[in-house]
Amino acid sequence: MKTAYINGSFFTMNDKFDVHDNGMMVTDNTDIIYIGEKNDDMLQRVDKVVDLDGKWVLPGLVNAHSHIHMTIMRGIGDDMLLQPWLEEKIWPIEQKFTKEIGKVSTLLGALEMLKGGTTSFSDMYNPVCIDIDEIMNELDKVGIRGALSHTIFSSGTDEDRRINLQEAERVARKYNSYADGRLTTMVAPHSPYACTPEALEESARIAKENDIMVHIHLSETNYEIKDIEQRYGARPVEHVRRTGIFDQPTIIAHGVVLNDEERAMLREHGVSVAHNPNSNLKLGSGIADIVKMLEANVQVGIATDGVASNNNYDMFEEMRIAALLQKGVYYDATKLPAETVLQLGTRIGAKAIGMPHTGSLEQGKKADFITIDAKNKPHLQPVDAASSHLLYAASGHDVSDVFIDGKEIVRAGECLTIDEERIIAEANRLKAYLV
Amino acid sequence: MKTAYINGSFFTMNDKFDVHDNGMMVTDNTDIIYIGEKNDDMLQRVDKVVDLDGKWVLPGLVNAHSHIHMTIMRGIGDDMLLQPWLEEKIWPIEQKFTKEIGKVSTLLGALEMLKGGTTSFSDMYNPVCIDIDEIMNELDKVGIRGALSHTIFSSGTDEDRRINLQEAERVARKYNSYADGRLTTMVAPHSPYACTPEALEESARIAKENDIMVHIHLSETNYEIKDIEQRYGARPVEHVRRTGIFDQPTIIAHGVVLNDEERAMLREHGVSVAHNPNSNLKLGSGIADIVKMLEANVQVGIATDGVASNNNYDMFEEMRIAALLQKGVYYDATKLPAETVLQLGTRIGAKAIGMPHTGSLEQGKKADFITIDAKNKPHLQPVDAASSHLLYAASGHDVSDVFIDGKEIVRAGECLTIDEERIIAEANRLKAYLV
Repeated sequence: MKTAYINGSFFTMNDKFDVHDNGMMVTDNTDIIYIGEKNDDMLQRVDKVVDLDGKWVLPGLVNAHSHIHMTIMRGIGDDMLLQPWLEEKIWPIEQKFTKEIGKVSTLLGALEMLKGGTTSFSDMYNPVCIDIDEIMNELDKVGIRGALSHTIFSSGTDEDRRINLQEAERVARKYNSYADGRLTTMVAPHSPYACTPEALEESARIAKENDIMVHIHLSETNYEIKDIEQRYGARPVEHVRRTGIFDQPTIIAHGVVLNDEERAMLREHGVSVAHNPNSNLKLGSGIADIVKMLEANVQVGIATDGVASNNNYDMFEEMRIAALLQKGVYYDATKLPAETVLQLGTRIGAKAIGMPHTGSLEQGKKADFITIDAKNKPHLQPVDAASSHLLYAASGHDVSDVFIDGKEIVRAGECLTIDEERIIAEANRLKAYLV
Repeated sequence: MKTAYINGSFFTMNDKFDVHDNGMMVTDNTDIIYIGEKNDDMLQRVDKVVDLDGKWVLPGLVNAHSHIHMTIMRGIGDDMLLQPWLEEKIWPIEQKFTKEIGKVSTLLGALEMLKGGTTSFSDMYNPVCIDIDEIMNELDKVGIRGALSHTIFSSGTDEDRRINLQEAERVARKYNSYADGRLTTMVAPHSPYACTPEALEESARIAKENDIMVHIHLSETNYEIKDIEQRYGARPVEHVRRTGIFDQPTIIAHGVVLNDEERAMLREHGVSVAHNPNSNLKLGSGIADIVKMLEANVQVGIATDGVASNNNYDMFEEMRIAALLQKGVYYDATKLPAETVLQLGTRIGAKAIGMPHTGSLEQGKKADFITIDAKNKPHLQPVDAASSHLLYAASGHDVSDVFIDGKEIVRAGECLTIDEERIIAEANRLKAYLV
């Protein structure tokens, strides 16, 4: 079925940053088959015409690193450093999760992401918190696009570690492509500090044998650098490289502490970075040097991390802070202009998480797009430079409609696939078991 | 008339950060006469009871530095440094303003502020852009609380400068207290770089004779430090001190570049700082050291600056970024915890702009308060640590109701005192004359 969307301003986020004011987009079921100026001939031949009434249309935002199962822990452990936060708060509380808590927490996260305009996310879940088979089934019904990766930890007994790796391999095999390709997976060794070198090597093997990406936390804090140097005689990037991880397509979360040599190494191996500016600030990790990453041609996506270190999934805010931080740190307002960052949060981020068939409004791409109705929003007025407003003034709360694979998932701010009231009630009921 | 507000969670923002879950607040017209636990005796004696249905209540946010007349310039001159931004974009465009443009721009700004939960603001307007008598009259009708300050520039001919100062003095006399005290004024020499020493001395005199505060941009960029040192042989703080400005209660905007000696000097003179983290980042000015300011007992308020360098008036976002930046720059997640920053954005900010009778929910204070309905907001769920959510997850878009002087100004997100549709239409029509 062909649908034409007319009377909107289309921010394609293609590499030329084309914007079609009062343009037209045509989808054929799940795919975009036309984007550009209004085309009356084509308009005659579609099955359905949607009048967008002046709305802004952009590709769905891409959250390159999250822990969606943690949503129920929002506000737990604020104002704490990464290591005590993980060891005293997050990990002990995760041990108390039931599969029901994990499911509700995940759906609450998906709900927030969708309402805020995120259509794709790359996630690292803790297998003690969720039943991935159930979650994949639930997220299929929700309709969101995502790569959900089983986290490999080298903790507990030898038997615990064996089971953890075995399950990671099962997930890698089963969810390479699921739900019409909307749901995928990666191999996710947690980090060089929480995994043994053997676990990293096993991760590389599983990724290779199943032809999937690796997702790992890397070079997040100065503490990590010292710790890994002390344990293994190499900085984290080199240490991980030696395990063969970078021979597979890889995305690293953070990259806050990198030197020139390491950026060059990431570039050489085609390793992408998920930049989590809010989380890096909130946990006192520092500010990643995105200017130098881009200069080194490292591919960068924007991400929120989990909401226990953010504390929301607002990708508009995240893109804005990404841009503002580099300007401030470099004392140079020209760094990371609006068009650059909007592309990191969409097309480039999609490539970085292995979804190059999404992230921009271009012919042949999946019909993942969102709309914003600026009409009654004083903070998006007056309208002159709309792309400026998208980066510097908008928020996830401005999102009106969300489409994924051409299917309407959010309409006028209401999620059609998740029972919002029920999930919020459940989250509040279940939280009592955790804290 | 006495009104009791019940069944809400009251975040008082008093110096103990008291929160009354399921508490009660009673107002007598414009004033808060009770705040605390639910009191049935008192409830019998009020004229009206408002059931808040579980909403969160906090004092209205205080924006310590803005240029509200600039709202129509949102998105103009992004990704530019301060000096070319001012000299090539902002100032030339301001010369094209008509009084009608200035009025619409101001009302659009007030609308955005109010809907986002800001009840008080301290503003520096460019007198070429507005007719202050008309604006004071309009803002009286709008019901917002504000200090509007005529900017003193030493530009143009001698006659221009004389007229500018003369008008500043007239405004200082006339608007010391207006609209039942809701509207006030300060003397606002733009900055040490845009004012002669004589203009600064005149500003000090006008402030002293009229017993009002001084509002000035100070120590915003490294460029300014060098420029003032070169011109006057002293850094900006010392230069301004010599003119007598600091003998009056003063608030400086920015303070990005300060040393220990200067912080001590500000403290000694009781000078407050309006911290504009987004604007300082966006213009490439840098990151003010708020940790050291607070350690030096300098009073700090939070502010947005104008939306051409922000680009919105969302004080929740501004508070959040203020907190996150210090954590990141200090590599220490414990810096500026939620409770501290929420108080800077309310009670401390109110003191900093000369409105100590507002900014917290305490007996004897003005009934300036806002409500948030978290119920259907996934990003504010689940609810455990609501003060964490207020700082780290909320946004101005979450604000439901706004009361100033006990009067309802915004109800369920709709401003009752400004015709939103008309102002937005006018802003779009008039913008064409500027760019």
